[in-house]
Amino acid sequence: MPASISLLEDLAANLSPGGLLTEAGDVAPYCTDWRGLFHGEACAVMRPADTAELARAVTICAAHGARIVPQGGNTGLCGGATPPDHGLNVVLVLSRLNRIVSIDPVGQTMVVEAGVTLAAAQNAARDAGLMLPLSIAAEGTAQIGGLIATNAGGTRTVRYGNMRELTLGLEAVTADGDVLDLMRPLRKDNTGYALKHLLIGSEGTLGIVTRAIIQLQPKLAHTEVALCAVPDAGAALDLFAALRARDPMAVEAFEFMSGAGMALTCEMIPEVGWPLSETPGTSDYVLIELGTRDPSRDLRTLMEAVLEDTLDRGVVIDAVLAESETQSQGLWRLREEHTEAQKRAGASIKNDVSVPVPAIPELIARATAACEALCPGIRCVPFGHMGDGNIHFNLVQPADAAGADFLALSPSLMAAVNDVVRALNGSFSAEHGVGQLKTKMMPDWRGGTELALMRAIRTAFDPASRLNPGKVLPADPASSPKAG
Amino acid sequence: MPASISLLEDLAANLSPGGLLTEAGDVAPYCTDWRGLFHGEACAVMRPADTAELARAVTICAAHGARIVPQGGNTGLCGGATPPDHGLNVVLVLSRLNRIVSIDPVGQTMVVEAGVTLAAAQNAARDAGLMLPLSIAAEGTAQIGGLIATNAGGTRTVRYGNMRELTLGLEAVTADGDVLDLMRPLRKDNTGYALKHLLIGSEGTLGIVTRAIIQLQPKLAHTEVALCAVPDAGAALDLFAALRARDPMAVEAFEFMSGAGMALTCEMIPEVGWPLSETPGTSDYVLIELGTRDPSRDLRTLMEAVLEDTLDRGVVIDAVLAESETQSQGLWRLREEHTEAQKRAGASIKNDVSVPVPAIPELIARATAACEALCPGIRCVPFGHMGDGNIHFNLVQPADAAGADFLALSPSLMAAVNDVVRALNGSFSAEHGVGQLKTKMMPDWRGGTELALMRAIRTAFDPASRLNPGKVLPADPASSPKAG
Repeated sequence: MPASISLLEDLAANLSPGGLLTEAGDVAPYCTDWRGLFHGEACAVMRPADTAELARAVTICAAHGARIVPQGGNTGLCGGATPPDHGLNVVLVLSRLNRIVSIDPVGQTMVVEAGVTLAAAQNAARDAGLMLPLSIAAEGTAQIGGLIATNAGGTRTVRYGNMRELTLGLEAVTADGDVLDLMRPLRKDNTGYALKHLLIGSEGTLGIVTRAIIQLQPKLAHTEVALCAVPDAGAALDLFAALRARDPMAVEAFEFMSGAGMALTCEMIPEVGWPLSETPGTSDYVLIELGTRDPSRDLRTLMEAVLEDTLDRGVVIDAVLAESETQSQGLWRLREEHTEAQKRAGASIKNDVSVPVPAIPELIARATAACEALCPGIRCVPFGHMGDGNIHFNLVQPADAAGADFLALSPSLMAAVNDVVRALNGSFSAEHGVGQLKTKMMPDWRGGTELALMRAIRTAFDPASRLNPGKVLPADPASSPKAG
Repeated sequence: MPASISLLEDLAANLSPGGLLTEAGDVAPYCTDWRGLFHGEACAVMRPADTAELARAVTICAAHGARIVPQGGNTGLCGGATPPDHGLNVVLVLSRLNRIVSIDPVGQTMVVEAGVTLAAAQNAARDAGLMLPLSIAAEGTAQIGGLIATNAGGTRTVRYGNMRELTLGLEAVTADGDVLDLMRPLRKDNTGYALKHLLIGSEGTLGIVTRAIIQLQPKLAHTEVALCAVPDAGAALDLFAALRARDPMAVEAFEFMSGAGMALTCEMIPEVGWPLSETPGTSDYVLIELGTRDPSRDLRTLMEAVLEDTLDRGVVIDAVLAESETQSQGLWRLREEHTEAQKRAGASIKNDVSVPVPAIPELIARATAACEALCPGIRCVPFGHMGDGNIHFNLVQPADAAGADFLALSPSLMAAVNDVVRALNGSFSAEHGVGQLKTKMMPDWRGGTELALMRAIRTAFDPASRLNPGKVLPADPASSPKAG
């Protein structure tokens, strides 16, 4: 009997009904990412109903030498949840672990299973008068476990941090099927190594997150949203400094959009509406959201004071303040539709990079120049989370070029952007992770002692590399995983 | 030639003048902690002048099989910086790595070497118009490297987190003398395992922190400080909830003091002054500090609104607001002198524990009852960082007992407190760490998979256990360090 058949029999016997998919047509959707860029092979998909069932299934896979590819909402951008195209792989789907276990209104924490979507968790928090302050485009589909495994970021990092900062405790299943219980809702706990932090962002290679305690926040009493036209990214940074000097804790979001990106958005998606008098694309732009939990606090005055001062100094050219929730949403839509607009404009290349916040203007200037030199007519559309240093330095094909010709330049264009990022002490993956897309960059960017220690940790947790094989760490050229 | 002599010759040849102490009288002060509770042996003290010299010295120690005990300001409470009493040990003192390398006013970050004291770093931040928001009693002596190695906490964790949350990047030297460069001043960087977080709080057992990037904050524009009398810890928690509901980000500190502790403080140190009309000890107490960076914001109104509401509801019995900086310091002194007052009252036992914030009243009630049952006349003085769940559940001898008799009860009294902490899903060491004092608690509290993985990490980083031996992890009864 081949290994895979006895494996499937053992799994079937231990998973509750509906917990195992083995038909090729059922398995196939789990073997590719949502953009269709990555494809792999798996002999089955398992969908355990709870942690105990999951742990048993992992133990069975270990006994059969099968490799496990954990998959949350499958919304990642780096192929981190797609199985390899060879070997004995099983996709582990978390979607049945979808219970919101409890909400503590006093401690302002929430216990959730890994398969709960971010939107469901946000809604449950809201129903309890609280707020789960993580906001990403895929929040309707992305799951808590995947968000923790990839340390998701988004537009609120400037204020609340990434998923790491929101994760108070977690439970995970190891490569051997042991349950690691780190479910301690404590702000202070100095009792040994930070295994929780090691698991967060490890993309399923050190353990499978099955449950978490999320730190919530009280609901905001009110917000102020403004769209500002600024001469350039340097001015945007001045505006950020002016806001932070006044009250850094009021800044819920600070998003940069280049003129090129805004012009493209208004051209491709005209229904977004354009609220400023200047032609979109004449300058660069910033979207500001301020928020407070103090109902008596007057944020409008704070916003107006900062805008008056920056308008006087020429840091801001023009600005519009939302007068209603509908207007706030309209201003946010100008930011959110950037991705869709780029898609409609033809072939594009995504660079999810970060640099120290003060270096953002230099990043944009130098990377734009480098890309334009390589590909005349290219449309550089840097935009994103300026407040936390994370710019999506996306590249859209020239209007008159063939998409395939443009994509053929992808390696040299990405290298050009990354060379600038590196010179500025930045990161080649700010929030999207490494997955399988960027493993080959690890030796160059995180090599030497750092990569050697990561390999040693991987070996310590999972000597046979059965958890999410081929992700995060590149294949090891050396026989020994420990640094010399 | 014995190993230690050739080791010392090699070290002397590689350290700059004054970098090696070998005379018994010079070495002895480094072989005991400041309280004189722990004593060890070392053949030398090395004081390298920079990271390169330090790394070479570590490599030399590795070649000789010598063990290294990193020591910052030697202000720890768990013997984490004191060498073992056997074996070939060298104490590594960081105090010559005392440069404030740079401050970035735009990114609001600071690059410092590990031997800089917290007070020096705070002052440098202040001189740059910024704030390093970590505050602990030992800040004049404690060093940045030690604060990172122990993930120091203190009174501002409720608002800014622990040292972990303030550490944006770090540099460390591994057991083999390799330099691990994680000096990336990035808010988002998802490129592999969180080695930074693994090193933070590892108490020098995984690497020696040599340099760090600290996230600073803008200076506060103004603060409001109040001392409140509350009926009990449950009311203190209600007061905390009332403040947080209004604006959690305004709460810079929220410190609880039991009536017994306050009475003792006013009795032992009468010069602290007592600002309320009731007799000290009649009720429990809370010290609140609110802060804002918005100069136009009126925190006094917020404080008064919360106090009026809580006074109306009987949650607060009486309150005094500081009218000047001097008065603020006076109110803070009532909190800060708690430790000294306990010392003057005779023998005392310290329990640095944490529980989920909502469980604090139950912790105090149950642990007090348990201790009083074991030792009639005992003075339980729970106090500390209620806002982050960390209570110093200290125990002072009965007024009429002999100190030695009281200390003989120490194991049973600590066990009684810890049994309650455990039942409430808390931690036996909130901010003081494990050191050598609490390693024996690790198997019971952090055993099974968690301890097995910690041991596996230790082996991956330092197979011969030469970095700070005997700390954090208890001696391993099994031959293999990996979990079965």
